[in-house]
Amino acid sequence: MPLTERQAIRIILAGIRRDPMALLPYGDDAAAIPLGSGAAVLKVDMLVRATDAPRGMTLRQMAMKAVTSTVSDLAAKGVRPMGFLISLALPRGITSSQVRELALGLDEAAGLYGAYILGGDVNEGPDLIIDCAALAWADPGRLTPRNGARPGDIIATTGPYGNPPAALRLVQEQLMVELPDPVVEGLKRILYEPRAHLEEGVALAGIASASIDSSDGLAWSLHEIARMSRVKAVLTEIPISPEAIQFAEKTGIDPLNLALYGGEEYNLIATINAARWAEALDRVEAAGGTLHKIGYIAEGRGVYLEEQGEVRMIEPRGWEHLRSR
Amino acid sequence: MPLTERQAIRIILAGIRRDPMALLPYGDDAAAIPLGSGAAVLKVDMLVRATDAPRGMTLRQMAMKAVTSTVSDLAAKGVRPMGFLISLALPRGITSSQVRELALGLDEAAGLYGAYILGGDVNEGPDLIIDCAALAWADPGRLTPRNGARPGDIIATTGPYGNPPAALRLVQEQLMVELPDPVVEGLKRILYEPRAHLEEGVALAGIASASIDSSDGLAWSLHEIARMSRVKAVLTEIPISPEAIQFAEKTGIDPLNLALYGGEEYNLIATINAARWAEALDRVEAAGGTLHKIGYIAEGRGVYLEEQGEVRMIEPRGWEHLRSR
Repeated sequence: MPLTERQAIRIILAGIRRDPMALLPYGDDAAAIPLGSGAAVLKVDMLVRATDAPRGMTLRQMAMKAVTSTVSDLAAKGVRPMGFLISLALPRGITSSQVRELALGLDEAAGLYGAYILGGDVNEGPDLIIDCAALAWADPGRLTPRNGARPGDIIATTGPYGNPPAALRLVQEQLMVELPDPVVEGLKRILYEPRAHLEEGVALAGIASASIDSSDGLAWSLHEIARMSRVKAVLTEIPISPEAIQFAEKTGIDPLNLALYGGEEYNLIATINAARWAEALDRVEAAGGTLHKIGYIAEGRGVYLEEQGEVRMIEPRGWEHLRSR
Repeated sequence: MPLTERQAIRIILAGIRRDPMALLPYGDDAAAIPLGSGAAVLKVDMLVRATDAPRGMTLRQMAMKAVTSTVSDLAAKGVRPMGFLISLALPRGITSSQVRELALGLDEAAGLYGAYILGGDVNEGPDLIIDCAALAWADPGRLTPRNGARPGDIIATTGPYGNPPAALRLVQEQLMVELPDPVVEGLKRILYEPRAHLEEGVALAGIASASIDSSDGLAWSLHEIARMSRVKAVLTEIPISPEAIQFAEKTGIDPLNLALYGGEEYNLIATINAARWAEALDRVEAAGGTLHKIGYIAEGRGVYLEEQGEVRMIEPRGWEHLRSR
């Protein structure tokens, strides 16, 4: 049995000393330590082409995705990137114009999130690997952890679900589905060109009690919030994108499965004290985003879905890497 | 013609916008930006097993080397790491105990340099890759750049040269050389268990005018200082380790070539205003290190060696990755 990534993480966490000054628990989306009068927030995220880049993704899109997935985790903590360092493993035979395309994609993504590429490291490697490190600076009291959800909190998210897993079936399994071109384009857009919900995350800093992004799938991410906060998460409605619903109708795939066990949407999932809901909504809308109420936090453990008076348990299944599909 | 790493870096630097707030020039050993009342210094360094880990190196040693090479670049800038984030690509089939060995090596190295592993990312990958990101915090006025060397400065280094390239010939090319065991052990020690000269680098902060580590080889590193500072570097003596001299005698290899074009010693190479030489020496010795005068900076360009009244030019050849040997 090969080790899963999550098993490897547990072994590593068991083998290292913990920094007693850490401001976020180990296992949260980013690391934070006191620095000067504030907190330095650090995040690394590695994109490995074979497992993280779906078929048909361009080098520019891979470079942008590497930056976006790093920023998405900072967004979930409520902080804005100040700069990026990029480590690249480049396969033999990569051309000048391909390297240039990577550089332009990295720079475009950094600019999208208001920061610069500050430096990096370049190596020869067996496959294209883009490892993105980001630094942010925060008021330590306004970092949004994974473990702060409290019974009574509203669960909210910043966008609809289902497009990336549907698009993945189209491009990866070459599934033939008769859908209008704009629907196919809509499905593929988030798969190839995801965007971090940075403004929404920053707008929720100091308001949300807990937050995570949905890159590992809605079900998995809610299980993380519930497990780390020692509470129960109850979903009451799940916003599914119109494109994913059309895809589901044509293919007979349950749209709820696409929404719950997909991933890579890079939506934020936040829990918010009910008394601050109106403020949260105002702030996110003022930042140009949207916030959908999708459930509530209760005493207990686990993740559940309430639907037409029925309650069912949602398994902690998540996004798996492409290779294992 | 495959691209070299240095060509790829040039293409990337041509494709990205520069942060106007950057406190070190792009292309220096680390990046630095203003943060609060000081400067955040960031460094990433990627170890790819196939090209960076010599034959016979254990997983613990690879993990330690990944951290050490990152710290060495911070040491060259005169700053101390506050914490590390580690991105790992793990090949299929890696076992729990191998992952544990990596974790223990990472933690041991972090502890050696007075800091903690703060977090990271774990992925499946085609080869073992350990990408280490480090954060430091500095007084912006005390960062030691590569480009500050001035005519009249003394060139100094923190240790002797020649062991890693000699050891590499023993382990990589399986060269049979009759040498006493302690000599072989001495040669291999720096190859397998290099240590960053962190205390020396911190002791020289605010004194050295320029600094770099010798991981790409003494010749290459001096060319970097000379090129970026727009000066000439003249070597007058090169400390070669006694083990490397014995190895050279037995093999007929020129010890000067081992010292100049080897690399991976992780010595620091610093330039120091002659008026501050005594202070530099005192500080480094108080920090438990040694400082050897090896030459001087003059008007001009390039790198030269003065030997018995003769002056010869030193080529900008450097350390090449193992695979291309």
